[in-house]
Amino acid sequence: MLHTPYRRVVNYYETDMMGWVHHSNYIRYFEEARVANLDEMGAGQAKLETFGIISPVTDFSCVNIKPTRFAQELIIECRLTKYNGVRICFEYEVLDATTGELCATGKSSHCFLNTNNNHKPTALQKSVPEAHEAVLSYMEKMGI
Amino acid sequence: MLHTPYRRVVNYYETDMMGWVHHSNYIRYFEEARVANLDEMGAGQAKLETFGIISPVTDFSCVNIKPTRFAQELIIECRLTKYNGVRICFEYEVLDATTGELCATGKSSHCFLNTNNNHKPTALQKSVPEAHEAVLSYMEKMGI
Amino acid sequence: MLHTPYRRVVNYYETDMMGWVHHSNYIRYFEEARVANLDEMGAGQAKLETFGIISPVTDFSCVNIKPTRFAQELIIECRLTKYNGVRICFEYEVLDATTGELCATGKSSHCFLNTNNNHKPTALQKSVPEAHEAVLSYMEKMGI
Amino acid sequence: MLHTPYRRVVNYYETDMMGWVHHSNYIRYFEEARVANLDEMGAGQAKLETFGIISPVTDFSCVNIKPTRFAQELIIECRLTKYNGVRICFEYEVLDATTGELCATGKSSHCFLNTNNNHKPTALQKSVPEAHEAVLSYMEKMGI
Repeated sequence: MLHTPYRRVVNYYETDMMGWVHHSNYIRYFEEARVANLDEMGAGQAKLETFGIISPVTDFSCVNIKPTRFAQELIIECRLTKYNGVRICFEYEVLDATTGELCATGKSSHCFLNTNNNHKPTALQKSVPEAHEAVLSYMEKMGI
Repeated sequence: MLHTPYRRVVNYYETDMMGWVHHSNYIRYFEEARVANLDEMGAGQAKLETFGIISPVTDFSCVNIKPTRFAQELIIECRLTKYNGVRICFEYEVLDATTGELCATGKSSHCFLNTNNNHKPTALQKSVPEAHEAVLSYMEKMGI
Repeated sequence: MLHTPYRRVVNYYETDMMGWVHHSNYIRYFEEARVANLDEMGAGQAKLETFGIISPVTDFSCVNIKPTRFAQELIIECRLTKYNGVRICFEYEVLDATTGELCATGKSSHCFLNTNNNHKPTALQKSVPEAHEAVLSYMEKMGI
Repeated sequence: MLHTPYRRVVNYYETDMMGWVHHSNYIRYFEEARVANLDEMGAGQAKLETFGIISPVTDFSCVNIKPTRFAQELIIECRLTKYNGVRICFEYEVLDATTGELCATGKSSHCFLNTNNNHKPTALQKSVPEAHEAVLSYMEKMGI
């Protein structure tokens, strides 16, 4: 199994006056898990940016199922669902690390832009071939 | 016209290393506009919470169309789209305040929970009748 | 009077589970007020950055006097206290906009770095003379 | 040695358009390290709050020494410096986890308030005696 589950504990400053994690933070948790996942597959954001390639979010969504709380340990599962060279999509699950209970789900899509070429869209295969290969190889291993 | 457009300037701390607003902040901008909108219609969150009623987000989504930048003035349009007493839904548009250009769109859905009754779902009509009436009256005026 | 007080309402997402504004947000409020203040004096951050000059915070502090709450309207007073060409210092007061009650105070210091010269420290007089003049002129008017 | 160093990687959303961590986030890193430290000594925030005791920040400060970046692994050292039963103080160091280089330092002070008694100040010895003992025992072990 290539993919290590991403674990993190809820911080105090991520709660709001309802006493739960503010929903906007799930989008940040998704990013953390995606960054870890891409790193692990060899197509990390830090690496891409050394080639001037950024991969901004084009759309995202989240469904809240059960509130999460300060000091709760969470697992954020991040699964690559689609990749066609110019666009990459992920799905997420936020789980209680102890009980396995599902707390939230989400999705995000990303394009690739070349900051050295006026932020125009680019194909990863052309701009960072080794990252492209890493993604394809990961998809094959994972049966995606 | 009942609804005043919600204006706000992008803060420095809301940008990320891409040089644009981090996408998670749009969810916070949506909240700001929704809070202002609900206040204006007489069903504000501060008021609801004096009755022990909270209205957490059950799901939300966002589509990024054009990056926004530090010091850019934005208008965040928030439109109530559905309300059935136990659930309320909104749509959002983030526009450049100068050019009117569309930068992002979004949606959110919310339920009502009674913190004085074990956080169980509640109908607004029952728990805060005047807020329920205010929403209905707003919908009628706006032709929703 | 040159300086317009900076007003802003506390957002829901800025509260934490204590029910008050999370203290880290005051540092962000200070930044908002400072940005507005520098803009008004003609030495705005957006302008500086067109010359490749950034002014990162070198140190900052905050004293919390009275908790602030969701939907509370605040005035954040920002006063330039020192400027010697290579360093600029500010003091802040967070006040309830209705009662004038003092809720927090703070300080920050900033240097100037030239992103076109390996992020080396720079004198504003040399790198953006008109901003330097604007600051001096402001200090004279304000009797600093 | 009682105290495990607190490690964490810089998140993308914590950077700003300068390309570095936004300074306000250090206050959040301090909190994360303090929460871990208090947990380890048996006087954790989660525990205190079960007794209705909160420990808000009364003042804090930070000195930035060297910018930190996305994906950088940091150690945040948190040291209890003073405790007199009604007030607790900490100092912090943010270090690069690889090189040990010092990136920032900070301080914070906290009081104890009883949410079951109108948020009045309280002595920890009276409100949560076992947490008081845990802090004293920790101070003895650490030679503070």
